[in-house]
Amino acid sequence: MEATYETLNLIKDGSILIVTINNTRSEVNLFRQQTAVELNILITSLQNDTSTKVVIFKSGNPKFFIAHFDVIPVPGKFLSPFCVQSHRNANLKIPKGEPDPTAIDAAAFNGRVFQAMSNLPQPVIAMIDGPARGAGNEFLVACDMRFASKGARFSNFEGTLGLHPGSGGAAWMPLHIGRGRSMEFLLSGEDIDAETAERYGYVNKAFETSEEMHEYVMKLAKRIALFPLNGLASIKKTVTTLIQPSAELMASEAVEWNRLLAEPEQAGLVGEFIKKSGNLTSVEFELHVPDEVAKLYGK
Amino acid sequence: MEATYETLNLIKDGSILIVTINNTRSEVNLFRQQTAVELNILITSLQNDTSTKVVIFKSGNPKFFIAHFDVIPVPGKFLSPFCVQSHRNANLKIPKGEPDPTAIDAAAFNGRVFQAMSNLPQPVIAMIDGPARGAGNEFLVACDMRFASKGARFSNFEGTLGLHPGSGGAAWMPLHIGRGRSMEFLLSGEDIDAETAERYGYVNKAFETSEEMHEYVMKLAKRIALFPLNGLASIKKTVTTLIQPSAELMASEAVEWNRLLAEPEQAGLVGEFIKKSGNLTSVEFELHVPDEVAKLYGK
Amino acid sequence: MEATYETLNLIKDGSILIVTINNTRSEVNLFRQQTAVELNILITSLQNDTSTKVVIFKSGNPKFFIAHFDVIPVPGKFLSPFCVQSHRNANLKIPKGEPDPTAIDAAAFNGRVFQAMSNLPQPVIAMIDGPARGAGNEFLVACDMRFASKGARFSNFEGTLGLHPGSGGAAWMPLHIGRGRSMEFLLSGEDIDAETAERYGYVNKAFETSEEMHEYVMKLAKRIALFPLNGLASIKKTVTTLIQPSAELMASEAVEWNRLLAEPEQAGLVGEFIKKSGNLTSVEFELHVPDEVAKLYGK
Repeated sequence: MEATYETLNLIKDGSILIVTINNTRSEVNLFRQQTAVELNILITSLQNDTSTKVVIFKSGNPKFFIAHFDVIPVPGKFLSPFCVQSHRNANLKIPKGEPDPTAIDAAAFNGRVFQAMSNLPQPVIAMIDGPARGAGNEFLVACDMRFASKGARFSNFEGTLGLHPGSGGAAWMPLHIGRGRSMEFLLSGEDIDAETAERYGYVNKAFETSEEMHEYVMKLAKRIALFPLNGLASIKKTVTTLIQPSAELMASEAVEWNRLLAEPEQAGLVGEFIKKSGNLTSVEFELHVPDEVAKLYGK
Repeated sequence: MEATYETLNLIKDGSILIVTINNTRSEVNLFRQQTAVELNILITSLQNDTSTKVVIFKSGNPKFFIAHFDVIPVPGKFLSPFCVQSHRNANLKIPKGEPDPTAIDAAAFNGRVFQAMSNLPQPVIAMIDGPARGAGNEFLVACDMRFASKGARFSNFEGTLGLHPGSGGAAWMPLHIGRGRSMEFLLSGEDIDAETAERYGYVNKAFETSEEMHEYVMKLAKRIALFPLNGLASIKKTVTTLIQPSAELMASEAVEWNRLLAEPEQAGLVGEFIKKSGNLTSVEFELHVPDEVAKLYGK
Repeated sequence: MEATYETLNLIKDGSILIVTINNTRSEVNLFRQQTAVELNILITSLQNDTSTKVVIFKSGNPKFFIAHFDVIPVPGKFLSPFCVQSHRNANLKIPKGEPDPTAIDAAAFNGRVFQAMSNLPQPVIAMIDGPARGAGNEFLVACDMRFASKGARFSNFEGTLGLHPGSGGAAWMPLHIGRGRSMEFLLSGEDIDAETAERYGYVNKAFETSEEMHEYVMKLAKRIALFPLNGLASIKKTVTTLIQPSAELMASEAVEWNRLLAEPEQAGLVGEFIKKSGNLTSVEFELHVPDEVAKLYGK
């Protein structure tokens, strides 16, 4: 099944599937729409895959887990009217091809993929070394367990652009870290680091080094993989019944994302963001997104 | 709009509204029914106020955030039969005027005001320096974020008088600090301090000094106030959909408060409380309420 | 009422009821079906017992709070077909008497008893000194408050045998410690210790010594016991309305336990577990259950 993936790399270690997310076109590991499409294929294939008992996700990028969603329009593929408008507002070059009003509803699609992941029979574990922001964190909220090393950063900074996270950031974070802290997290768009995330209960455990994290997670995964899958799936289902946003709330997040994206102010802000980040290629910009977004307002 | 308030002081700093709660008639900053009435006016006015992006609440009293609700009957205004009965039981002087059986249902009214606050489009932040007990804490549970300096204390001690908190203390605290800890908090009526409240996730962050807290909160508020309000409101709504007690549960809290208040034993305890606190004026008594209530039982 | 109990010892200290759980037939304090039957009688009697204001549970065994459920079939009493099958699979001696297909549905019964405990008007406090695993932890999840000394260990290791906890382990733990940590707890079957349980918010407070814990809990219980019971019960009911698994989810846990128990692989694993633990009598085995279950898989 590896052959079909462009942004994911799959390695099977016994009944443990290790998936490396790597957008080789992007130095900051942008979450492409293609990534979501491939995740969807992978997750669908796992639903009846009794040879896989544990799934581990990590990043193939040394500096970023996932910077955020790639909002640069792809001609003929995901050329949403919004992306084109953002480019126009920021006087950026618009990719060839006309905006496609039937283009995929990225926020809703991604949210459904992440939700399907949280419903898999297999436990899903994420190991995070660098910044995971926007869609990167929306992927993580829906994993079953998160472990982080010192360089990890978590953020849903969509609110800083007047947007709603769109694919589960707001619908999941309060379930993980409570109302007060998710308000600060989501409304400020500031990062939280690994140690804070552990203290908030967002990551199960924070580690000084990536090596310690890998050792802990592989030991945990190997232990879980000993046990019958039908038992693991049964337990996971009960936990998920208790703590998971409803499909309705997830859908409303996407509606809010799209509604706010269509506002001229927000389209302008996203355009400025794209411009200042060098079309989302600047490593320096992406490393310091929480500071950079404040500069869009002259701060 | 400032002109209409007797217990609130409003200062506008750009799009940040700073509200100081100050009952100048009371050295312990009792939460008067008038305070709730004024909060209701303020909150109603904020519902469509697009010039305000963040609301900050603090206390104008150097020693107390809010001691608790003022249960002393006000002649001709809030002269509830309960308050009169408490006074009679404790051989206290009853204010002139007959008890008004149609008097405002304070617990239900306050709960609705606090609930409306949690539904505002603007983020609501509280800074707490001293004790916040009873209605003081019921105000705080419904804020979006809480920050506390070293002298802060939190308590819903209504249970120590055989009462139910009445306006959200029991309906919100478990959502913030979990079942086990809210049971101890509510059933013992003991204080928790700033550091414990941070560890429990009730306050976002605890600070050594009030100055550090003010600096942190003003920086946070100024950052949030940069961003488009419709985005902030959209995010806040999703979080609130997930974590907020239902209107039905809030209403049932008030029913329970009223039911238990009508019990002779409880009316007697409240009367004793009023007497021993010097008609709710003793600073020393109010600083040490958790110890003082035990003395009502001879301990 | 003491006279009727074989596995419980009751002492009344004023309005505080102290219940010591002690299965004198077992060195590891196995949770017998008889224990659940007696708890059911006790809890039923407490529902209208206005002389009792606080209930404290502790263990009478110096080494174990409760090791886990006793799955050894009792002839003529709780001889479930499952237990007989486990014994057959493990070539163990089957107790005399035929399997009784109408035998008590232990998982469902225990879950209902624990649920009834969480609905009592009186606050229920547990003091934990040693390992509380399986049914031992399922008893604890439904208590109102948990306090632990250094030697305490918590585990629901049912998943390591391909089973579902069955009586509330999976339905309650996520409500106490969140999704990420309960996934690790339930799927790995590893212990968490007192300090970790406090950090996760599962126990209210962890103590270095059992003496410190006793002192703290007795002081807390004596304070709560000062206050009117109808107030305490009213508060507890509101908290429970907010945080308690539904009866439906509890019932589905038991269905899952029974479904998975009927699987040949699981029956074999339970049989091996019984054999290696010396018919559940080995103190050494029971002290190290998380390690011992891995050995069933040759690890």
